[in-house]
Amino acid sequence: MSGEDAPAQQQNAEEQKQQQQAQEETKTPAESPKTESKPDPPPTSASTEAAADTPAPAAEKAPEEDTFSYRALVLTGYGGYDKVKLQVKKGKPALKSGEVMVRVKMCGLNFADLMARQGLYDRLPSPPVTPGMECSGIIEAVGEDVTDRKVGDKVLVLNRSGMWQEVVVVATTHTFLMPEGMSFEEAAALPVNYITAYLMLFDFGHLRPNQSVLIHMAAGGVGIAATQLCKTVNDVTVFGTASASKHEVISQGGVTHPIDYRTRDYVEEIRKISPKGLDIVLDPLGGSDTHKGFNLLKPMGKLISYGAANMLAGQKKSLFAVAKTWYQQFSVHTLSLIQGNRSVCGFHLGYLDSETELIAQAMAVVVDLYRQGKIKPRIDSTYHLEQVGDAMRRMQERSNIGKIILTTEPMKEEEKKEEAKKDEEKKKDDKKKDDKKKDDKKKDDTKKEEKKKEEAKKDDKKAEEKKEEAKKEEN
Amino acid sequence: MSGEDAPAQQQNAEEQKQQQQAQEETKTPAESPKTESKPDPPPTSASTEAAADTPAPAAEKAPEEDTFSYRALVLTGYGGYDKVKLQVKKGKPALKSGEVMVRVKMCGLNFADLMARQGLYDRLPSPPVTPGMECSGIIEAVGEDVTDRKVGDKVLVLNRSGMWQEVVVVATTHTFLMPEGMSFEEAAALPVNYITAYLMLFDFGHLRPNQSVLIHMAAGGVGIAATQLCKTVNDVTVFGTASASKHEVISQGGVTHPIDYRTRDYVEEIRKISPKGLDIVLDPLGGSDTHKGFNLLKPMGKLISYGAANMLAGQKKSLFAVAKTWYQQFSVHTLSLIQGNRSVCGFHLGYLDSETELIAQAMAVVVDLYRQGKIKPRIDSTYHLEQVGDAMRRMQERSNIGKIILTTEPMKEEEKKEEAKKDEEKKKDDKKKDDKKKDDKKKDDTKKEEKKKEEAKKDDKKAEEKKEEAKKEEN
Repeated sequence: MSGEDAPAQQQNAEEQKQQQQAQEETKTPAESPKTESKPDPPPTSASTEAAADTPAPAAEKAPEEDTFSYRALVLTGYGGYDKVKLQVKKGKPALKSGEVMVRVKMCGLNFADLMARQGLYDRLPSPPVTPGMECSGIIEAVGEDVTDRKVGDKVLVLNRSGMWQEVVVVATTHTFLMPEGMSFEEAAALPVNYITAYLMLFDFGHLRPNQSVLIHMAAGGVGIAATQLCKTVNDVTVFGTASASKHEVISQGGVTHPIDYRTRDYVEEIRKISPKGLDIVLDPLGGSDTHKGFNLLKPMGKLISYGAANMLAGQKKSLFAVAKTWYQQFSVHTLSLIQGNRSVCGFHLGYLDSETELIAQAMAVVVDLYRQGKIKPRIDSTYHLEQVGDAMRRMQERSNIGKIILTTEPMKEEEKKEEAKKDEEKKKDDKKKDDKKKDDKKKDDTKKEEKKKEEAKKDDKKAEEKKEEAKKEEN
Repeated sequence: MSGEDAPAQQQNAEEQKQQQQAQEETKTPAESPKTESKPDPPPTSASTEAAADTPAPAAEKAPEEDTFSYRALVLTGYGGYDKVKLQVKKGKPALKSGEVMVRVKMCGLNFADLMARQGLYDRLPSPPVTPGMECSGIIEAVGEDVTDRKVGDKVLVLNRSGMWQEVVVVATTHTFLMPEGMSFEEAAALPVNYITAYLMLFDFGHLRPNQSVLIHMAAGGVGIAATQLCKTVNDVTVFGTASASKHEVISQGGVTHPIDYRTRDYVEEIRKISPKGLDIVLDPLGGSDTHKGFNLLKPMGKLISYGAANMLAGQKKSLFAVAKTWYQQFSVHTLSLIQGNRSVCGFHLGYLDSETELIAQAMAVVVDLYRQGKIKPRIDSTYHLEQVGDAMRRMQERSNIGKIILTTEPMKEEEKKEEAKKDEEKKKDDKKKDDKKKDDKKKDDTKKEEKKKEEAKKDDKKAEEKKEEAKKEEN
């Protein structure tokens, strides 16, 4: 990182501190270290932690506040999927002037959430903290001086963090009215992916008819949003990388040339079709892929870097992957940009949260495109809060096509049973595997024993033969 | 320069070679090394070099070709103003399919021409070569397959080099019809400055209403073009650096906040007015100013670097200035761009000459804006080809407000007389200065002599006094 970033970092640190303080103010006993010391739930399903042993709220609180409680996902520390736990928060959150309280229906899962869980995303306040940058829901209460929202309004919410819970309190400027006909799933899938894709393609990228764009992870949330937005402009050629099994879906979605990055050199494939190169490269990968993207640019071409997915090599932080991505990180001199007539941009919505006007403008355009039927979020799958580990694993393993959603809807009894059954089956599976291993070991051991015995017999036989020979010689 | 530029450089080298070959094909005897060995003309006025001693053209050539000759400015080697000489080329240039021959009226002078003269601009083929990227004139002949231009058409011409002469042959794609009411001066002032400013502000910059822009060298050709283009968008705030004497003119031209960079810290001045920073910074300076510009950017801000004027510290190449600018050259990592949501772009029209479609589109917009009266090139001054040295000096010393033009119109007798008079006056001035110096030296010498004499007298007196004293003592 270069020296000129120092002031920005200072500012970030300060904001983080403020956020952390706010977090602590609303912290309930359920989040106290006491509950944290309980044994961890199984890795991929977050169990609801009861708060029965917490002290009773102070007497001066209103009765409603006493009984007000809601479930929240909480990142308890950096690490694997099991670090995100489902907890119960108690007490009604305070509502300041200009704020609204939203009863959350659906939440969106983003790549930044995976980075955050590993401690690789500095915009999330330190644990314990509720992650999540977006959700949809219904306004349940409005603070003083709120005139543009009322109880019952259906809204999309975009915030720096804290959206993965049943109740959120945010500034009205962070909420946007849902248009007619939009589902809560779609509303939770829209903000981060579509605003990111929109600002990258149209503000930094200045996308125009007849241009060509490379979209990595084209079956991911941003990938699908970017493809749809490209299609709102005439005759844009979209190159999209994704594994072969997803090609049919992304082709139908608008990708002109799907490329399987696992079996093909995408640079070579693109050069074959577009020898002059590309107008825009969206790069969520970082490391060596940024270099490749830069070299694919035409004159007046724009490389837009918006992540470092190459840093994520598994469930837990891989120091090797981080170091490699960091080491291979792209750096460029202005004189070489001048000679190539090129642009290199960096984008991350998480660092734009204070730019409310800019975000509001972009959201207005995106919502309008939805109204016109030009864009439509594709939902890959919906998980219960309890299943957040499975949801994150699906994204980490790049199994999704489209958006992964978390729903606050409680699991139905049959779902719970099914989930329990799955868990049971998993356990059985694991036991079977264990048993098989033990069995195999036993069989192995028996075989070895038999072999030994046989060898011993052979030895005995040899000894007897020797004895007999010795007798014959004596005779 | 980073490794990924290697292919682009190879291509450039090849193009350069081709251009050089083309140059050599049209080379006339007047450009041969023979004429180069003649003594150099005085530094600031290019004398026409006669070609009386060149061999007669071959007998098979048509009589017209025999007598066809035209004046051309030729860069004979890298260095000071005297390296650009006015020569006479003989023989009609060949006209290939798709090309037109233009009788040049006016030529534009650009900063890149100053860089080129010092050997700091690699898009100009090696000397001897005719510089100049733009001119205006009238079509005198059309090659085969030319259907969109006819003899008599008034055109603007944009080319990689070779425009500073009375006759040019270029592909029709490099010519653009002059709109009604445009003067030849304006037509020569338009292409480089306005296309540069247009592509920077609207393609890389994506300028929108209510944004803020920093324009360095705001009284220069690109500076004035950029200011006018900013004013075509509602409520754009323009910060412009220029010396105080130019502030009135640039304010009238549209600069909201003129800043005298010689007496004020422009970063401080801008922060006072716009604490959040700027949306776009146009940076023709390079070196430490690029760092300052980057740090002034808002989120989603764009820094557009389009030169390294800081490399030019005088008439001749200053290795110190070049090394300093190079050393301080700005380089940036994508991760720090991501955290700041920033864009860094490099632009130079000279490296875009193969992008005919892009240029044509931009030119169409710019010419249309001229027709609507929204832009109008400001001519600073017009020089005869013979005065190219003075013209370059004016730009080098940043004395101009607007475009510096070279006209192919022959100097009138009275102009020649005036020029000769000026030269005479200059010589007289120089002589006077010399005489004064000599005089001063003489006076100095006389004074010294007198002083010495006085001292000698004193010494004599002392000696006499001593003698007298000695006599007294003897007595």
